Amino acid sequence: MVETLSPGPCVPRDGGVRLRPLPFDAVRFAPEGFFGRWQELNRTAVIPHLWENLESSGVLTNLRIAAGQADGPYRGFNFADSDLHKTLEAVAWEAGRVPHDQPWEADVRAAVALLAAAQREDGYLDSHVQVERPDDAFADLRWGHELYVLGHLLQAAVARVRTGGGTDLLAVARRFAELVDERFDEDHPGCCGHPEVETALVELARLTGEARWLDLARRQVAARGHGTLGEGPFPAAYHQDHVPVADAQQVAGHAVRQVYLAAGVADVVAETGDADLRAALLRLWDDAEATRTYVTGGIGSRHKDEAFGDPYELSPERAYAETCAAIGVVHWAWRMLLLTGEGRFADAMERALYNAVPAGLGRDGRSFFYSNPLQLRTDHDGSSEYAPGRRLPWFACACCPPNLARLASSLHAYVATRSDHGLALHLYGAGEVAVPATADRPAVRLVVRTDYPWDGRVDVEAPHGLVEPLALRVPGWADAGAVTLVVDGTPAPVDVRDGYVRVDAHPGATVHHVRLDLPMPVVPLAAHPRVDAVRGCVALRRGPVVLCLEQADLPDGVLVEDVRLVAGSPLVAGPGQAQQVPVAVRAHGVHVPAADAPALAAAPWTPDGPTPGEGGAPVDLTFVPYHAWGERTPGAMRVWVPVASVTR
Amino acid sequence: MVETLSPGPCVPRDGGVRLRPLPFDAVRFAPEGFFGRWQELNRTAVIPHLWENLESSGVLTNLRIAAGQADGPYRGFNFADSDLHKTLEAVAWEAGRVPHDQPWEADVRAAVALLAAAQREDGYLDSHVQVERPDDAFADLRWGHELYVLGHLLQAAVARVRTGGGTDLLAVARRFAELVDERFDEDHPGCCGHPEVETALVELARLTGEARWLDLARRQVAARGHGTLGEGPFPAAYHQDHVPVADAQQVAGHAVRQVYLAAGVADVVAETGDADLRAALLRLWDDAEATRTYVTGGIGSRHKDEAFGDPYELSPERAYAETCAAIGVVHWAWRMLLLTGEGRFADAMERALYNAVPAGLGRDGRSFFYSNPLQLRTDHDGSSEYAPGRRLPWFACACCPPNLARLASSLHAYVATRSDHGLALHLYGAGEVAVPATADRPAVRLVVRTDYPWDGRVDVEAPHGLVEPLALRVPGWADAGAVTLVVDGTPAPVDVRDGYVRVDAHPGATVHHVRLDLPMPVVPLAAHPRVDAVRGCVALRRGPVVLCLEQADLPDGVLVEDVRLVAGSPLVAGPGQAQQVPVAVRAHGVHVPAADAPALAAAPWTPDGPTPGEGGAPVDLTFVPYHAWGERTPGAMRVWVPVASVTR
Repeated sequence: MVETLSPGPCVPRDGGVRLRPLPFDAVRFAPEGFFGRWQELNRTAVIPHLWENLESSGVLTNLRIAAGQADGPYRGFNFADSDLHKTLEAVAWEAGRVPHDQPWEADVRAAVALLAAAQREDGYLDSHVQVERPDDAFADLRWGHELYVLGHLLQAAVARVRTGGGTDLLAVARRFAELVDERFDEDHPGCCGHPEVETALVELARLTGEARWLDLARRQVAARGHGTLGEGPFPAAYHQDHVPVADAQQVAGHAVRQVYLAAGVADVVAETGDADLRAALLRLWDDAEATRTYVTGGIGSRHKDEAFGDPYELSPERAYAETCAAIGVVHWAWRMLLLTGEGRFADAMERALYNAVPAGLGRDGRSFFYSNPLQLRTDHDGSSEYAPGRRLPWFACACCPPNLARLASSLHAYVATRSDHGLALHLYGAGEVAVPATADRPAVRLVVRTDYPWDGRVDVEAPHGLVEPLALRVPGWADAGAVTLVVDGTPAPVDVRDGYVRVDAHPGATVHHVRLDLPMPVVPLAAHPRVDAVRGCVALRRGPVVLCLEQADLPDGVLVEDVRLVAGSPLVAGPGQAQQVPVAVRAHGVHVPAADAPALAAAPWTPDGPTPGEGGAPVDLTFVPYHAWGERTPGAMRVWVPVASVTR
Repeated sequence: MVETLSPGPCVPRDGGVRLRPLPFDAVRFAPEGFFGRWQELNRTAVIPHLWENLESSGVLTNLRIAAGQADGPYRGFNFADSDLHKTLEAVAWEAGRVPHDQPWEADVRAAVALLAAAQREDGYLDSHVQVERPDDAFADLRWGHELYVLGHLLQAAVARVRTGGGTDLLAVARRFAELVDERFDEDHPGCCGHPEVETALVELARLTGEARWLDLARRQVAARGHGTLGEGPFPAAYHQDHVPVADAQQVAGHAVRQVYLAAGVADVVAETGDADLRAALLRLWDDAEATRTYVTGGIGSRHKDEAFGDPYELSPERAYAETCAAIGVVHWAWRMLLLTGEGRFADAMERALYNAVPAGLGRDGRSFFYSNPLQLRTDHDGSSEYAPGRRLPWFACACCPPNLARLASSLHAYVATRSDHGLALHLYGAGEVAVPATADRPAVRLVVRTDYPWDGRVDVEAPHGLVEPLALRVPGWADAGAVTLVVDGTPAPVDVRDGYVRVDAHPGATVHHVRLDLPMPVVPLAAHPRVDAVRGCVALRRGPVVLCLEQADLPDGVLVEDVRLVAGSPLVAGPGQAQQVPVAVRAHGVHVPAADAPALAAAPWTPDGPTPGEGGAPVDLTFVPYHAWGERTPGAMRVWVPVASVTR
């Protein structure tokens, strides 16, 4: 084993990146903060719910059948094994996060034993193929998901080793990886229809120090884009097999596949420094960010093929914005942040982590959204699990719940870094950062006090003093001119570079207290004019939190479809009602009953006449955080709200 | 055989409807008119193209395999037989339309012989089941499409009998129908996952006078909505199996299935007078018309599940608007028109027939759109056959091309009716109407001269005089106050009732000439305010023809996404360029390069600041008929165009 200092997820070698993650146990969130509550909910509700559903959905039984311990047909999608693997990864991170209390260790050992029993002599381990078409291993790379399943198995195994769980799961995963390495050697290129194994193989290389896994990851990336996956009813771009990765100009195809691939490629770049792949990643990022990202940080506009969609095709009402896609953005963005040190990638992480990702998780920790639309209509047909009216306990395709769990369990690993340039805080969550001493630098302990994202004041205390530079991210949403910084009681200049303001201790002195104030007015946002679907509308954002208007906050008889925000209305943030959300925003609106409007497209338009839907009776509007929508009655909601002109 | 007078499609019994179709050979379109050209293109290009593709796509080979005449795997979707059946229906109508020239009679006889050879002893005839899972006849009503295939076979057989082709195909179809009638008797209810057989069975009853087929159609309708089709990953509403038809309040599910079902139910109502079903049809119509119909007459917003979508969910950029769905609307609307005599149903037919339906057919008669979006973006990924950038010669699911053919071949049957209240013209196409004498009324011959839909003047001449009342439809799009009517040189009052103005001959006199003038200014339309996707935009319509703005008509460097229509701009109709389209509309626009706009959702909005995308440099705009889009370079297009305010 090469690694030291209890690494967390994604630990590049020294020198390959601008920023280095901290040890996995370096950051602890305070239980009352946003992230701390999330991790607690994840531990007390989500993970137990996962174990229950791994049993009831047939995931564990599928493996028992493969192991000869049970009879019956395979159940679920062909990648259902990965539901277990992602759960095992989440539990492994929990074991590292709360090492004194490991309630699931017996379950994990039983699962490892089951996996070992199901594994074939040759190392193959995919219960769907073993049960349904045992002679067809690797016969259908396009749809088989076998390397995807291996990837999640590897990530779980790596996490278990890193958090002290031992090598039992690694031994199983490694045998499968060895089979894949032999099967897809230099002379027999192949890649999986669903990227995922790339990241996992690089992590395996990091864990073991064995170059073969990095080579295999590189071969996976190199194989893609040459028609390797063959023809089929889905276009090649669906699998990102339409163009070599290094030549890609735009994000394309299935959104989760695209961002998983990008994260894996970023891992390869971190280890190899490949300049062409690095340039491609920056192009793809810029394209996605500028043309194909919702204000919530969600990506993937289309239900059909779960695709990114065309540039500026960002309709709120049918936004697919799969929870897993937003999670994939966090993974990709973190790797880009490590590679470049640029705050814009942390901005994207923050946007997803306060909006698109937590929207997928219910307050009870046992209900989930698979897709995350930015508008839901009155009379919505919520019978599809891909577009329900409220969060659901489980899914036929249950990729999202365990994906949320593995992210939440490792969330504290994405907060801070240390590099030759000092410490950096990228995400603000109440808690502590304790960095052990290294050969050339002393240990540091920071206490972060903040009510972020509900309040923009961040106090960073260094009880034992801080001698190295500290970079604090100034989010892209903040008005840099209004941001203030106070160091040990003295106002300091706010000189933002690449998204960070840097606090330097004077030579020979130490810093004990830094106060960053990020004012959080409620800001109405206009979309890029090519986003036709929200023309004439604004979205409200306060700090990093995007707000929405819910039917539950409107008077009886006033439908959310028939409300307009009065232009120039004061936007007043205050406490949310009934403890449902910490912050709500009040505004003035008007109600224009659409029953008065003519039927579809039957109304001649005139430049001087009233715009349909303007005017109307005053109505008070209350906006709540988007991520908390749908917790009351199932019902209509919208993020983008039309604006009523004040002048007519 | 009960019928007389060479009936066309959908011939209700006397008394069951308000209006009666004319004999199939009563109307002939002039070759230079819109409909006449369409029928000629259909005959000279579309139908030969169908025959070629029935061979190359494997449809005929599938049947040869089922008949033991060939080997090989089944090819195509499991309802591919219906591609042949719809082609046979089209050719049968052609045989009635041009009886002196029947180029495909030998092909039809060969196809009938093939079908007879493939048919099982028990009458079963579905090559997919026979080749792929011969023991599973009717085992999967939800997805099997067997009764759907039977329906199209029956409609072809009925058309062939009605147009003098004889009973060879009917004999085959009837044996299959008898098997279905026995299998799904009163004690064994069942219905097909894809409605279609309902209409066909009623037509078979009309043709044969046998009540059993109407009974079977009624049982099909009655079985639906009781969970008859069982559970599955698609919601019950997908198949309209979520609620009994008579109780349905809203259109739902797969759009083609919904309108095919509605048309079949309307046929049942025409024959039975069932008041509950009739009321349900009117409810469903009103719901679809008011909340789920595009300005082009297309329906079905979603690619996913090919679904109708929620109320007001009418995004132009991802409009699915399948060609077959618009054809289904024509069939449904015609039946509602016959039932009620209300012009609004003819309005809907007209809207579809000049916009959503012909958009699916290329000028070459050999290329087709499956989906008909109202916007296509620059950099659109056109690799999917369901959302290509230009019309395609064929499809894996080739339902639309032969559906277009059978509609075009019978289009003249949907133009006029005769009832106790006289003659009525519902659609205006240049040509002749020759109605034979009946027991109580003399023969009538009308000559219709018009350049409709490019010009709103319609001259109806009765060379031998007209003694019965003549109702002329005044379209809903027309400004009734501007419409003029002249009867034998004398201006007449324009008293529009239920969408028609009635011309009555004075007692003892005859009418020889009627001139209806429907002014066709270019009208900018605003959508219902709940259609969020087109807020701040207008669509231009001239007469019944919806227009669009194409990239091909813009200067280099001006993207269609970056253009605004100047509010109040004169909208001037004139001849189209280069014979591509007869009419184009010029307007003033502005060009606002979006490169100047900030990235997505990064722009704080202020009520006093400029609205993003307004202002800009003048640019001339040319709008062309929507149905003719995509004939030049593949490229961006939009029907709904943002309006730039003149006041800021």
